[in-house]
Amino acid sequence: MSDPPYATGQVVGRPSLGDVGEFGVIDALRKRLSSSSLVAVGPGDDAAIVQAPDGRIVATTDTLVDRVHFRTDWADAYDIGRRAAATSLADVSAMGATGTALLVALSAPIDTSVEWTMRLADGISDEANLVGAVVAGGDLSRANTVSLTVTAIGDLAGRSPVLRAGARAGDVVALAGRLGWAEAGLAVLSRGFSSPRALVSAYRRPEPPYDLGPVAAKAGATAMVDVSDGFLGDLGHIARASRVVAHVETDKFDVSDPIAAVAAAYGTDPLTWVLTGGQDHALVATFGSARDLPAGFVAVGWIDDQHLGDEEREEDEESADGLKSPGAVLVDGVPFAGEPGHRHF
Amino acid sequence: MSDPPYATGQVVGRPSLGDVGEFGVIDALRKRLSSSSLVAVGPGDDAAIVQAPDGRIVATTDTLVDRVHFRTDWADAYDIGRRAAATSLADVSAMGATGTALLVALSAPIDTSVEWTMRLADGISDEANLVGAVVAGGDLSRANTVSLTVTAIGDLAGRSPVLRAGARAGDVVALAGRLGWAEAGLAVLSRGFSSPRALVSAYRRPEPPYDLGPVAAKAGATAMVDVSDGFLGDLGHIARASRVVAHVETDKFDVSDPIAAVAAAYGTDPLTWVLTGGQDHALVATFGSARDLPAGFVAVGWIDDQHLGDEEREEDEESADGLKSPGAVLVDGVPFAGEPGHRHF
Repeated sequence: MSDPPYATGQVVGRPSLGDVGEFGVIDALRKRLSSSSLVAVGPGDDAAIVQAPDGRIVATTDTLVDRVHFRTDWADAYDIGRRAAATSLADVSAMGATGTALLVALSAPIDTSVEWTMRLADGISDEANLVGAVVAGGDLSRANTVSLTVTAIGDLAGRSPVLRAGARAGDVVALAGRLGWAEAGLAVLSRGFSSPRALVSAYRRPEPPYDLGPVAAKAGATAMVDVSDGFLGDLGHIARASRVVAHVETDKFDVSDPIAAVAAAYGTDPLTWVLTGGQDHALVATFGSARDLPAGFVAVGWIDDQHLGDEEREEDEESADGLKSPGAVLVDGVPFAGEPGHRHF
Repeated sequence: MSDPPYATGQVVGRPSLGDVGEFGVIDALRKRLSSSSLVAVGPGDDAAIVQAPDGRIVATTDTLVDRVHFRTDWADAYDIGRRAAATSLADVSAMGATGTALLVALSAPIDTSVEWTMRLADGISDEANLVGAVVAGGDLSRANTVSLTVTAIGDLAGRSPVLRAGARAGDVVALAGRLGWAEAGLAVLSRGFSSPRALVSAYRRPEPPYDLGPVAAKAGATAMVDVSDGFLGDLGHIARASRVVAHVETDKFDVSDPIAAVAAAYGTDPLTWVLTGGQDHALVATFGSARDLPAGFVAVGWIDDQHLGDEEREEDEESADGLKSPGAVLVDGVPFAGEPGHRHF
């Protein structure tokens, strides 16, 4: 990488976290955060108190590490904050729930600027506010690398959670939200460019269809997952958990113009970005019939009752490297040739 | 530092996380974890579902970073896991609640051994089981440094949370659990020694008096905090949040034999370790009268109705470096001369 393609805000700067000190930073952060009737005790005590009107909570945690999940020279603090919050809140939505509160653990070098940290907090807070959630607590630690762990709490409002394991033969596989945009944006940034801006923005700040998680649950979705590691990989999680085979029809996917244009310029197959690119946080759900699909979902395949044979499944689960094969998803009738999605290791 | 004082288990080794892959590691971890009737959906879906019988939850998150909060050559994976879980569960206890579930986000280098990771998980799980909690979910990320963020969820069983802000003039300041042991153990390890073992063990694996948090809440504790950064510093949090002055009498503190012996050998004041050492996760609470103290708590001071003057307080809050002064705690009638506790920045 040469120079960053545009100004993203300095991570290092004065006054720094070290200049202001832990409690000074925490006080400044607290003043920027919004409050919520669902958070009885917010930041500043040993723990937060979050209302759980449903009598259960949905809870999920995700870590984003500098140079692994984001780059501070490719996105400013505000967008990194938006993305960190989105990553966890999309998981809540994929259970059919609505986010109520976030806990944010930030590790950062001592010379990280206070301004950068405040903009990060603003991004997290604004993304949370999209679903009515607020930051209820957190932790601030010294480390050599910037790293963010966001825990999201959500409420099911009396609905049953939509799990990965509920897909049944005959179900329709449906998609809500964008695929491939973030991956194409990453490809653009990786080559030192900053346009098409629509793709770069999609990488920097995903727009998960939060509302459609609860909508799908109400419409009777039998299984659901958010696409964080790639459509085929995440649909594979549903297929394996449900012990079914998922069929995907590629002619059901729109390859939008900017993705097609960039793929042509880079000599890449745009469909690979669409099928395996992560981090747009689309929702994939299965429904009992095409009539059940709520607005916002598009049918892209179906669930087959042909299980993997026992022998095949055993091999699948016990494969020498511990990796599960993507055999439970067929693309236009055949196994996908490449990696079905992103693996962290 | 020369050689580590004893074998602590190799962090790097084969098979590694990279050899086995993300999903292989997660599958192996899931098989080791215990289940709980309070966790309706555990690891393996987009999010966990945790029962909240009280209609509210207590939630807190803490990060431990290698070389900042622990050293992999000073503690084995199992003890690091115990300590990471204890750090968050002690916060839940300090609200008067009981832990029900943990979410664990682990970041680690790709060559981290699977065995080390499994022992870490065992430590987290065993510590959680002490209070009846289980690991309900988590995240595994690649990073250059080992870092662990543990989010703890707890239940208040209908009690009011015990906040920092409730201390009132005339209250008794009381302590449950050990102080200074972890700090003395750290001093021992820092000098390349591994005994007295009681101190080193206290550093590696704190023993927070979890049960006494809810016990204090039932007994009417007016304020409570867990000692993670040092007794004077954490009592200062109560004093400032409650806008009172806390008085501490040093003759009420036992300096136990191993701490006294090591302090003498190193030419250190053992009382400094007791008053400012962190990470034993003792509980400090205030009670309306000495008669309210439940078994396990010892009176070590009292709350005064003499507020800091407005002028003084303003200066306190607006001090140039953003740090709040420790003026709200008086030790034997005078402000403490040194740092009242650990600051992360």
